[in-house]
Amino acid sequence: MKNVLIIGAGRSASSLIKYLLDKSESENLHITIGDLSLELAQRKTKGHKNATAIALDINNTEQRQNEIQKADIVISMLPAHMHIEVAKDCITFKKHMVTASYISDAMQALDIQAKENGLVFMNEVGLDPGIDHMSAMKVLNEIREQGGKIILFESFCGGLVAPESDNNLWNYKFTWAPRNVVLAGQGGAAKFIQEGTYKYIPYNKLFRRTEFLEVEGYGRFEGYANRDSLKYRSVYGLDDALTVFRGTIRRVGYSKAWDMFVQLGMTDDTYVIDDSEHMSYRGFVNLFLPYHPTDSVEIKLRHQLKIDQDDVMWDKLVELDLFNDDKKIGLKNATPAQALEKILTDSWTLKEHDKDMIVMYHKFGYELNGERKQIDATMVCIGDDQTYTAMAKTVGLPVAMATLQILHGNIKTPGVQLPIKKEVYEPILKELEEYGVIFHEKEVTYKGYN
Amino acid sequence: MKNVLIIGAGRSASSLIKYLLDKSESENLHITIGDLSLELAQRKTKGHKNATAIALDINNTEQRQNEIQKADIVISMLPAHMHIEVAKDCITFKKHMVTASYISDAMQALDIQAKENGLVFMNEVGLDPGIDHMSAMKVLNEIREQGGKIILFESFCGGLVAPESDNNLWNYKFTWAPRNVVLAGQGGAAKFIQEGTYKYIPYNKLFRRTEFLEVEGYGRFEGYANRDSLKYRSVYGLDDALTVFRGTIRRVGYSKAWDMFVQLGMTDDTYVIDDSEHMSYRGFVNLFLPYHPTDSVEIKLRHQLKIDQDDVMWDKLVELDLFNDDKKIGLKNATPAQALEKILTDSWTLKEHDKDMIVMYHKFGYELNGERKQIDATMVCIGDDQTYTAMAKTVGLPVAMATLQILHGNIKTPGVQLPIKKEVYEPILKELEEYGVIFHEKEVTYKGYN
Repeated sequence: MKNVLIIGAGRSASSLIKYLLDKSESENLHITIGDLSLELAQRKTKGHKNATAIALDINNTEQRQNEIQKADIVISMLPAHMHIEVAKDCITFKKHMVTASYISDAMQALDIQAKENGLVFMNEVGLDPGIDHMSAMKVLNEIREQGGKIILFESFCGGLVAPESDNNLWNYKFTWAPRNVVLAGQGGAAKFIQEGTYKYIPYNKLFRRTEFLEVEGYGRFEGYANRDSLKYRSVYGLDDALTVFRGTIRRVGYSKAWDMFVQLGMTDDTYVIDDSEHMSYRGFVNLFLPYHPTDSVEIKLRHQLKIDQDDVMWDKLVELDLFNDDKKIGLKNATPAQALEKILTDSWTLKEHDKDMIVMYHKFGYELNGERKQIDATMVCIGDDQTYTAMAKTVGLPVAMATLQILHGNIKTPGVQLPIKKEVYEPILKELEEYGVIFHEKEVTYKGYN
Repeated sequence: MKNVLIIGAGRSASSLIKYLLDKSESENLHITIGDLSLELAQRKTKGHKNATAIALDINNTEQRQNEIQKADIVISMLPAHMHIEVAKDCITFKKHMVTASYISDAMQALDIQAKENGLVFMNEVGLDPGIDHMSAMKVLNEIREQGGKIILFESFCGGLVAPESDNNLWNYKFTWAPRNVVLAGQGGAAKFIQEGTYKYIPYNKLFRRTEFLEVEGYGRFEGYANRDSLKYRSVYGLDDALTVFRGTIRRVGYSKAWDMFVQLGMTDDTYVIDDSEHMSYRGFVNLFLPYHPTDSVEIKLRHQLKIDQDDVMWDKLVELDLFNDDKKIGLKNATPAQALEKILTDSWTLKEHDKDMIVMYHKFGYELNGERKQIDATMVCIGDDQTYTAMAKTVGLPVAMATLQILHGNIKTPGVQLPIKKEVYEPILKELEEYGVIFHEKEVTYKGYN
């Protein structure tokens, strides 16, 4: 019997745990699920005979090391900055480790020790990062194996609301950490390379320079640039590609509307509003508009943004109840971003029967035998319900599958890594298809930008 | 004979040194001028018999303490962060100290020791901060002495090019640190209070929400909001004032044009451009524009900013030679802000016979006997030449005058302070008039914003 220790039983662990419990009989697994909240861990094990739920405080070194010693492999679903103590113990006690998080410098520093001990430390094996790496590397390598030369790579991903639950003017609800949505794109210009030229988009133009994406059966989406499109340029072997771009997917019109908040200054997270607690939504809006003794907040805002009252942009703001003078922010020392998040949460929280949706879109442009060609690969995944969301499935299932593949010895290259090797992505992508995570690849006319 | 030690002989020390040398005979002063560059110190003493120029490295503790011991008072014209070691020595050897810099936390921490030793540590006694404090407090106190209640205070200051040297489309040249001009307004929203309501202007709107200011004999200017208008609210006793606003003065049209750089992302100082050294000005501009195989940088930029080719905004960009493909940035690892500074320096550096100009504008709104009234106070100072600039005069003369007043025992309240007491501002403002730094006060109709 193999022992799997899962640390962290939060939202993104639901599908991961279900997958491993479902396989526990055939794979002869015992699964220990540790969380600060015993109740949360118990809710996820559902009294399964091959599972043990425990209260686990990762700051309790003795308990943590004790549990890690008993395991054959450790999955950390903790927040990214909390992995490192677990990782160090995995070195000490010679255990493999799996996470869905970006490889931190501290994690990378363990690479030599992991290799010396023959340990697989698999990271970035969730959705984004995760499925994006795997699905991109699969097509990139296929093109290269044919003798093709990659000239363009664009990759987009977005967490959205499923079409059947898409019933507001923004075509958007929060399906993941709202704070990250409010702060998206901040902290420097978006950087990418287009036809061999570096390009930078400042935050105040980010949501106005979008690209349309058509997904068969789902209609039109838009993508805005991520902060650093070039992070994986070398990792993917794209140093010679003329265009490398990564972006975030939204429904068309979202970005133009979101830009209103950017222009008003409502997404700023660098300072605290005076007396935010007792401020009304209307008062919050008025903070960003010039004083006038009689002009309404509404007319001042429309003038500032140069929109008419019959513009759908205006309807989108009204839908959020932004001009309500009775609703209070109710947060002490809130930044504008935190106040905005509060207002949006009123409107954009998923209702009980709402489903979420993950959309991923890759474009691969290449030269083969003197011809320019393009393959577009798209994936859409819809959540089952509020527990087995598209996000939980796409984040958790590849983590679980990687774990089994490591236990089976199919993934065996040791070291701190991300899933870009064929031995990793091939079995996982194949198995994901059984769970509805399917990429549709299509040859299209090469467009590029020339 | 009294010994005055001046540390730092840079640009802002010229008028300060000249004033003290001119007074050295009648006031029985010996002046020691220490600078890292002996040659610079010598150039400023001009072989005056009451002056000694020395090479002084303030990191050389022994030499620094030796010189401070010999002095009766120490003027530090060092960069702000370098005052503190000098200040600590002044406590040790019981010397008064004068600076033109903002009071740092480290400086403030010496307050008790300064008081215990009966030492005057006068700071913020240059132009801005300095003359702004003094000229504001004079009028504020006069209004209060009459029984008036302050309801509005607005204060603007700007370093500009004198009308006789004002010959470019921007009506602007660099008369002080160009870097501060490029970064102006960054790092958080501008905050102020208007008719009792807090207001915030995000950086991307800062240069579009200006206020016009008319100065008799000099025409119309505009002011944009400073980062924190409320810094001196309590210090000035304005906690009950309905409107408190501080701003920076430019000629009309500057801000609208500057906003083009903000919107394009060219003022960003948070990241480094790839291969900035060999990049042309044209290439720099193109970084911020979408790729196109044939559209010119010019048409892309006009489209992005929505300006026509017969718009003066366009002429302003052309005047800067922004589209030149031969001129190179020539700076390694430059941020956009540094690259822009380089481009602007080509056009905006003062020519040999150019003169600078300082403009200050205060508005004081108050209630007296049930009536609302307003006093506007304006000051314009024009530089003599490139050594005795308006900036050097307005920064250096009040420092020099405060020094003499301390030596005379007229300024005697000990402690770390700024010039808001009558014993300080009254004699200095009066003497400044002899040097052409004259405030014109005028009763105007109270406007306010209601």
